[in-house]
Amino acid sequence: MSYYQKHVFFCINQRDDGAPCCGNHNAQEMRNYAKKRIKSLNFNGRGKIRVNNAGCMDRCGEGPVLVVYPDAVWYTYVDREDIDEIIDSHLVSGVPVERLKI
Amino acid sequence: MSYYQKHVFFCINQRDDGAPCCGNHNAQEMRNYAKKRIKSLNFNGRGKIRVNNAGCMDRCGEGPVLVVYPDAVWYTYVDREDIDEIIDSHLVSGVPVERLKI
Repeated sequence: MSYYQKHVFFCINQRDDGAPCCGNHNAQEMRNYAKKRIKSLNFNGRGKIRVNNAGCMDRCGEGPVLVVYPDAVWYTYVDREDIDEIIDSHLVSGVPVERLKI
Repeated sequence: MSYYQKHVFFCINQRDDGAPCCGNHNAQEMRNYAKKRIKSLNFNGRGKIRVNNAGCMDRCGEGPVLVVYPDAVWYTYVDREDIDEIIDSHLVSGVPVERLKI
């Protein structure tokens, strides 16, 4: 059994060379928002959900990206509404959000 | 099918309050070593292996820690020999390293 039922990694990498990167799309703010919302729902912790910062996951051109493990489902997102949908549908209810998958 | 066959996350978090943290155990150096070795073996990239930096994964007292997804297998490690064993046995050959599991 997985230590975290859902372990979410947000790429928050910021590149300085002008190339595409998740850091140019409010990735850190969106990750912090997701972490805070999971905590407010009391879904954080062992056996439940963890929302992590991560470095570059090498899908820069498709970013901003996050990945949900152990499901291995990758998403892109634009705003808090997208993050809320990923949380409510996939993380809490187990139903992946097809429209945001990459 | 998973975008990466094995996606490895090293916690490289450095705490400043004296509490246990992976950053106190050469985590960044060990992650860089693992990433370089995977590349030298030509196992890096889509459909193969990715070695990532990650923030705190909240298993600080058991650290330094890394996790291999989608397998959801967690390890601690001491030195390059441990990292090599995780690479050669688990990542390349698919056989988890029982002695290093947490």
